[in-house]
Amino acid sequence: MVDFRTGCFFSNNKIVFRLFAPRRRKVELHLFSPIDDIIPMKKDKKGLWECSIDLSISDKILYKYRINGKDEFPDPCSNFQPEGVHGPSMFVDHDKFIFKYKKPEHKKNIFIMEIHIGTFTDKGTFHEAEKKLEHLKELGIDLIEIMPVAAFDGSRNWGYDGVYLFAPDRSYGDVKSMKRFIDRCHDLGIGVLLDVVYNHIGPSGNYLSKFAPYFTAKYHTPWGEAINYDDNYSYGIREFVLQNVRYWFDNFNIDGLRLDAVHSIFDQSGEHIIKNITDISEKKGIVVAESDLNDSRLIDKEIKYGLGCDYQWTDDFHHALHCLLTGEKNFYYQDYTDRECLIKSYYHGYVFTGSYSAFRKRCYGNKTDDIPTNRFVVFNQNHDQIGNRKNGDRLISISDEDRALFAAAFTIMSPFSVMLFMGEEFGEDRPFNYFVDFKDKRLRKAVFSGRKKEFSHMIDGGKIPDPNTKEVFIESKLDWDKLKKYKGKRFFKLYKSLISLKKQHIDILGNRKLRKNNIENDLFISKAKGITIIFNLKDGKRDIKPDFSFNVLLSNNVSLSGQKENKKRISLDRYGFIVLEKRKLCIFHYLHTDFS
Amino acid sequence: MVDFRTGCFFSNNKIVFRLFAPRRRKVELHLFSPIDDIIPMKKDKKGLWECSIDLSISDKILYKYRINGKDEFPDPCSNFQPEGVHGPSMFVDHDKFIFKYKKPEHKKNIFIMEIHIGTFTDKGTFHEAEKKLEHLKELGIDLIEIMPVAAFDGSRNWGYDGVYLFAPDRSYGDVKSMKRFIDRCHDLGIGVLLDVVYNHIGPSGNYLSKFAPYFTAKYHTPWGEAINYDDNYSYGIREFVLQNVRYWFDNFNIDGLRLDAVHSIFDQSGEHIIKNITDISEKKGIVVAESDLNDSRLIDKEIKYGLGCDYQWTDDFHHALHCLLTGEKNFYYQDYTDRECLIKSYYHGYVFTGSYSAFRKRCYGNKTDDIPTNRFVVFNQNHDQIGNRKNGDRLISISDEDRALFAAAFTIMSPFSVMLFMGEEFGEDRPFNYFVDFKDKRLRKAVFSGRKKEFSHMIDGGKIPDPNTKEVFIESKLDWDKLKKYKGKRFFKLYKSLISLKKQHIDILGNRKLRKNNIENDLFISKAKGITIIFNLKDGKRDIKPDFSFNVLLSNNVSLSGQKENKKRISLDRYGFIVLEKRKLCIFHYLHTDFS
Repeated sequence: MVDFRTGCFFSNNKIVFRLFAPRRRKVELHLFSPIDDIIPMKKDKKGLWECSIDLSISDKILYKYRINGKDEFPDPCSNFQPEGVHGPSMFVDHDKFIFKYKKPEHKKNIFIMEIHIGTFTDKGTFHEAEKKLEHLKELGIDLIEIMPVAAFDGSRNWGYDGVYLFAPDRSYGDVKSMKRFIDRCHDLGIGVLLDVVYNHIGPSGNYLSKFAPYFTAKYHTPWGEAINYDDNYSYGIREFVLQNVRYWFDNFNIDGLRLDAVHSIFDQSGEHIIKNITDISEKKGIVVAESDLNDSRLIDKEIKYGLGCDYQWTDDFHHALHCLLTGEKNFYYQDYTDRECLIKSYYHGYVFTGSYSAFRKRCYGNKTDDIPTNRFVVFNQNHDQIGNRKNGDRLISISDEDRALFAAAFTIMSPFSVMLFMGEEFGEDRPFNYFVDFKDKRLRKAVFSGRKKEFSHMIDGGKIPDPNTKEVFIESKLDWDKLKKYKGKRFFKLYKSLISLKKQHIDILGNRKLRKNNIENDLFISKAKGITIIFNLKDGKRDIKPDFSFNVLLSNNVSLSGQKENKKRISLDRYGFIVLEKRKLCIFHYLHTDFS
Repeated sequence: MVDFRTGCFFSNNKIVFRLFAPRRRKVELHLFSPIDDIIPMKKDKKGLWECSIDLSISDKILYKYRINGKDEFPDPCSNFQPEGVHGPSMFVDHDKFIFKYKKPEHKKNIFIMEIHIGTFTDKGTFHEAEKKLEHLKELGIDLIEIMPVAAFDGSRNWGYDGVYLFAPDRSYGDVKSMKRFIDRCHDLGIGVLLDVVYNHIGPSGNYLSKFAPYFTAKYHTPWGEAINYDDNYSYGIREFVLQNVRYWFDNFNIDGLRLDAVHSIFDQSGEHIIKNITDISEKKGIVVAESDLNDSRLIDKEIKYGLGCDYQWTDDFHHALHCLLTGEKNFYYQDYTDRECLIKSYYHGYVFTGSYSAFRKRCYGNKTDDIPTNRFVVFNQNHDQIGNRKNGDRLISISDEDRALFAAAFTIMSPFSVMLFMGEEFGEDRPFNYFVDFKDKRLRKAVFSGRKKEFSHMIDGGKIPDPNTKEVFIESKLDWDKLKKYKGKRFFKLYKSLISLKKQHIDILGNRKLRKNNIENDLFISKAKGITIIFNLKDGKRDIKPDFSFNVLLSNNVSLSGQKENKKRISLDRYGFIVLEKRKLCIFHYLHTDFS
């Protein structure tokens, strides 16, 4: 690892500007504020251009870099873009904000809630989001996962078109408001994960190639050439990314990172960039990875060549559950229609551990036996699984309340770490659409037609909403009023009880090796020591007679019959579920909470 | 792994033809011999087309596959192409040849000789090559490594343009003569490694894409799109390659494989194809890999995610030695001009274990401490390092005899496994040119101009020989008469003594952790328990006075002075070297053999 710092920072009573541009012949600093000036820069052996200026940290410093005396571009390491992605970069004095609260202690089996700041509240700012934190705390959330905030073109974006990886987008507030939000989370004992994108850079405002070979033609990604982690000059690009890792931990006091689509990060180096990232993060927080590879090496922390991530999103789990509840079987869902997938995923996390996938037309995945249970993060919806549908439908919209609650219980009662998507805990049925706000007409058109092409084979019929419109964004904002209504309350209470119950029995429930799962007579039954969880997989009644005495810890769509002290028959209505505790000899009071 | 057999083989008293062509709508067998006929084939779910015919295994069966009732192509799994790469494929009855001799027992620290069948002898056949095996045995070679024999276009080729991976090229003889050659090797206790190319397919006669997506645009190699190991339909391509691995072991009784350029094998699958290959090979023989990655994971057999190769070519060692002896510092040699590289490589194998390479403009490699010493194969020349020079110069041609012998000693006396390139053991100074014989004019032109471009920045001045001419091939054939002359005899004797000496002390010399290497006063000194090896790194005299009594085990360009029983002063002439054994108290007879 070559370790150097780039960007604009305060050092030895001066403001230092340092830029990686190894193949440029001339680079100058164009200062716009506090004075307008062109300042020459000097290059060193590593390809770093530098100048230092006598400025105060309290100055409003705005600047761009001028290449070969001609074109000017913002700083790839810009900490803030007050006038958008094409405007000047701004110096940020990170020492100014003092964090008051310590990060909460990290649990292994965790509850995450994924949120998008822009649609989490009406105003869509960090400041406004603070007001909802008490709600998350009450629900039992350990960590929130913020969709990427890196500055993007336009006033709304999912975040995956970010172009300034060190700059929170101005639409969410300023740097200070993001820090205050994180501090407030910590105050409430909630950790913060930040989604970061190290596999591609957004299409508008991306001037990286003006400075250095940030991309390589060696590998192809869905977004074009891959980020250059192992080709000529990759030392600078690797350092850029590793500096970004340190940046969020050190300056924003975050609890961890979520790495976007690591299957599109290609690296043949002796040290894989993901290992570099997890090595740095090890002492600072956690790393959650999204991967399309079903490769347990990603979350292996015990073995030399493991990549050391702490958690991995487990798409297979989602797909198996989604197929059961919606009956969909197009596109990638074709691989998950067999209900045995539920059993597989409840143990292995992955459904595919090396077997043939008809959708992928290849063998897929590997074994997970050596991996601790908690490293799999399961969910029954997330921004992708919702937003990558034509109409951004949440599960509840394409199934119903019973099935949405079944999904919640099936997910939370799994042995794995759990992630919820904002709003599902109060039965939100507004869509979470795909939205962008590029200014370039060709790009707007390309996004829309790409979207049309994407869904041509996935979902039939109906018009595809234009992701460029403001409406699809507005429509995606949470409707917090639902929380006050009957349905919202009922959902919230059940979610809260489920999370609380899981946490209470985490030592048993959170160890997949202690659990025995099987499907019989359309019932999914998971037993773990004294606890039995039963799910009705069908849109119809199912009865069961346990051969032991039990207390009911929690249920939905369930009725019990038989004598109270010897109640034996459990009747599960459509998609009903029940959590039983084997009764010991002493007398318990009746714990049953049914949500139906 | 999906396990299936393709190609033309005998089964249940019929000749079976089976072909992987999952996206073709119609495939027929065109039989040319013993009768001319078009036979329909049926496709199964996996995309395998099949037909079985009542033919005798003694029939001369010639065939092609007809796609969509129109174009006809040879079998990707053809075992022989009697009329060249565009002609029909031939059935081969592999049970006909009975191997008489068992494979020699495998040693860990090995001596390999790389040979190219076409230039190893005047006739360039397996049959003719047999006559030189006694010579290799006498030299002390454990294994020969045959450059690829897969059928290629034209009558001469290095082998890396092979297009039928299961068919020995007809220019070297028939299948039987190859098997007899291998059997003869085994008779003499010599093992056989076969160089196989799983990273690209040659440009002429390559009809693979007519059948299935053998290539993927996900990854780019120097030869274009990479072989498809992890994209749609990769299960068929993986099986094609794994079947090839089994094929050579099972039908040709080889001792191991040499995998060409594994850095251009890209695979994100849960099981890396190289691990699949080494898993299969584990019970059958060994795997030597060529890699440009300096990634010790490749030769890690102890840890889960290790790729399990037994050996790896160690280019860094070559480069460090080459720089010392030739003073060259262009292109990749620029990274190896520091003599400390010799020290690094003598311990780590790799010179770059993570540090910055100016040539590559990136950090390169990783640590090798956990890897057994013998897994590094070192050499002071090989087909690439010679042939990828403009004039195909061997080391002796660009240095001199003293330096060539220094290189031999430095290589053989290293702790590592050793590979020689055919002819170096008798001081061959003929070039080993790059040669091809494509029939297509555009391809001939492209090869020549590619060659010109390649050397534009590597070597200055002079004309670049046209690799398409027969002369560059003829010129590359070994001149075995040299072995009978003084220089040849002297070289051979020294090589033989060096190998014998290394083998005799392999427990000490072959363990890098027992050896202490340093450079002082232009002398490279390697000490291992009682043995001290001293190399004069300079074109000038160097004296040394060991502080112990010793026997001289071997030397070159060295004179000794002082009383015989107390000889103290060793005078090393230019590039001289000496191997000393610390004298114990008892009296030894004088072992010294000086080759100067």
